[in-house]
Amino acid sequence: MAVHLEPPRPEDLLTITGVRLGVARAGIRKPGRKDLLVVALAEGARVAGVFTKNRFCAAPVLVCREHLAGEAPIRAVVVNTGVANAGTGEPGLADARAVCAAAAKLLQLEPGQVLPLSTGVIMEPLPVDRIEKGLPACVADLAPDHWVSAAEAIMTTDTVPKAVSRQAVIAGRTVTVSGIAKGAGMIQPDMATMLAIVATDAAVGEDTLQDLVRRAAEDSFNAITVDGDTSTNDTFLVVATGQAGNPEIVGEGTAEFGHLADAVTEVARLLAQAIVRDGEGATKFITIRVDEGASAQECRRVAKAIAHSPLVKTAFFASDPNLGRILAAIGNAGVADLDPALVGVQIGDVTVVENGGRAAAYTEAQGQEAMKPAEIAIRVTLGRGDESATVWTCDFSYDYVKINADYRS
Amino acid sequence: MAVHLEPPRPEDLLTITGVRLGVARAGIRKPGRKDLLVVALAEGARVAGVFTKNRFCAAPVLVCREHLAGEAPIRAVVVNTGVANAGTGEPGLADARAVCAAAAKLLQLEPGQVLPLSTGVIMEPLPVDRIEKGLPACVADLAPDHWVSAAEAIMTTDTVPKAVSRQAVIAGRTVTVSGIAKGAGMIQPDMATMLAIVATDAAVGEDTLQDLVRRAAEDSFNAITVDGDTSTNDTFLVVATGQAGNPEIVGEGTAEFGHLADAVTEVARLLAQAIVRDGEGATKFITIRVDEGASAQECRRVAKAIAHSPLVKTAFFASDPNLGRILAAIGNAGVADLDPALVGVQIGDVTVVENGGRAAAYTEAQGQEAMKPAEIAIRVTLGRGDESATVWTCDFSYDYVKINADYRS
Repeated sequence: MAVHLEPPRPEDLLTITGVRLGVARAGIRKPGRKDLLVVALAEGARVAGVFTKNRFCAAPVLVCREHLAGEAPIRAVVVNTGVANAGTGEPGLADARAVCAAAAKLLQLEPGQVLPLSTGVIMEPLPVDRIEKGLPACVADLAPDHWVSAAEAIMTTDTVPKAVSRQAVIAGRTVTVSGIAKGAGMIQPDMATMLAIVATDAAVGEDTLQDLVRRAAEDSFNAITVDGDTSTNDTFLVVATGQAGNPEIVGEGTAEFGHLADAVTEVARLLAQAIVRDGEGATKFITIRVDEGASAQECRRVAKAIAHSPLVKTAFFASDPNLGRILAAIGNAGVADLDPALVGVQIGDVTVVENGGRAAAYTEAQGQEAMKPAEIAIRVTLGRGDESATVWTCDFSYDYVKINADYRS
Repeated sequence: MAVHLEPPRPEDLLTITGVRLGVARAGIRKPGRKDLLVVALAEGARVAGVFTKNRFCAAPVLVCREHLAGEAPIRAVVVNTGVANAGTGEPGLADARAVCAAAAKLLQLEPGQVLPLSTGVIMEPLPVDRIEKGLPACVADLAPDHWVSAAEAIMTTDTVPKAVSRQAVIAGRTVTVSGIAKGAGMIQPDMATMLAIVATDAAVGEDTLQDLVRRAAEDSFNAITVDGDTSTNDTFLVVATGQAGNPEIVGEGTAEFGHLADAVTEVARLLAQAIVRDGEGATKFITIRVDEGASAQECRRVAKAIAHSPLVKTAFFASDPNLGRILAAIGNAGVADLDPALVGVQIGDVTVVENGGRAAAYTEAQGQEAMKPAEIAIRVTLGRGDESATVWTCDFSYDYVKINADYRS
């Protein structure tokens, strides 16, 4: 029941020279489904990433950070679904390293050149033996046009695979950006969401790529929330294979950086929005824009307070214009010197709140009408400054409870 | 479907000399139900309160603060259910004052001697005319033994009225404490919950009573959460009529203060727990105790992070030992230097997590067994110090969504 989210068509995904993807059915948690992915990168590729801020970050996140900080260039990513390898202590670290070693052996790399990503149930041991047995099939399946298949192989409670491509022209050269992501619950990414990989053939300097991944995360994965729970495994990787023939982009200040950042951010944003559209039990896709803040940070805090309120989310599910709940959420956002008398709220075209109270012209019938569509835009004005922020979220339905009460059984 | 919560029996509630309560059916939002309460206080009574920290605090909260700060002693409290008079701007303030004036006229008081409390739907105008018409019936109904009837008159989505009495001996005199509360959703009180009134016949100094209400709130209403939404109307009042004959209690340091604070806190805690037991859609009552913290504050932050996680709450609803979700919530609590390797978790008698990972002896069958009861105790150890905190919450069920999707219709 994803909100306005069609499965991507394989023919719409653009290949990235230097990136091949291969999947397998390794039976990690359930038999017969694609659950293992290898992404092989050609020599010269650069990789940068941002990761969860959850203090219980998963073993694969720790190993990713370690390998990215190492000298050897990253040449492969191994992603498994089913088991998150989080809350698994020292044995979990050893398991993540064993997966890297097995993949490295098959691909003739060093273990430090492999990044491990895991998603699934927390606090269960990773079935390394099944992954080791599945890896040869992944390697045999490697091909540049397997993006959609790769997106399928990383799904957990996702109902639709998520894959997007875009192109940009940089210094006269066309560069391509393709990405995949997964996630439907435990989604309030903080720096990055649960498993997204975006690749481009653009040539980008190493430090510049790290700047780019941070910037792209900020207005995409860091601006969505399904349930306010930040996962232990959130990982967003950007790969630049450097094969587009553009002059290497170095430094954040250049026009070329801006063009590439826009393309990567657009892919990341579409993937992030796809995660919300496919949010567990979602029936509505809600854009919350907060304007007139003293800082972008406080605008985001207000937007997230609205997006996290179970009362607001259930009201949207019911198309019930119980809109005082939005005011209560704004008041709880922790903006200590907020003046309620300056606050305004619009739902779609309908002005609901003016000067901190019910708008004079507002009628309940208008509110009901504004709550009905599957795509809803909320705009809040704080009357404190010129800053803005936008957050995307979904509503809260019976099915959210059903999915999460049943997830493991 | 409240969890182990029986309606109070009128004969179990103890009268407080100097306190009379009267209710009416004023048709404020729905016809035929008790929805208006007057609490009349004898001369010499003292009142102290704590209120919501929501920036959109309701008009009656603003008027309460104003009247409590005034010179004239408080002699009455008027409580209406149905409409919260929040998000109503200047007209809302005028409405709250009109209710005080009407009650004052009937009781031969000044308007500043009346405290107005409202609960119900946000952002709708208060039907002052219906309240004015209902007040004479409340006054005619005033009696010392109407505590349970009063508890009924302030319910909204509550399924069970909440009223408790306790006694303590202070300096050889028996003093009595009786209280009522309401609330089932929009419950994460910050300083006080949505509408609780506790009265005692003890004699207490004015400043001391303010200390007492803060202390009692801390380990009762401030330690519960249903859905993490802090209401616009949270109000906790403590009344001391001074008619028990004890020497007036002055200062926080005395043994007498301790005895009275214990009795008031116990009544407040039982009322707060009753709110959680009657939490919207609740099927389980969950006690979360966090030990070995560096401060009580961080312990409470960890406990609340667990209590607010929709994923943890749905897992408890399903009796599904998907306990990694608890680790993820602990990791998200904002304790920046938390060492995951020192964290332990127990559910009931079952040790689930040791040293930040799955306990060696833990089996899924044990977890399943521990998740089944309607009353569940979670204990988290942080390995950082000697401080502790306890929070009470409930699970998250289909009915939470149902109740909040349907609340107004």
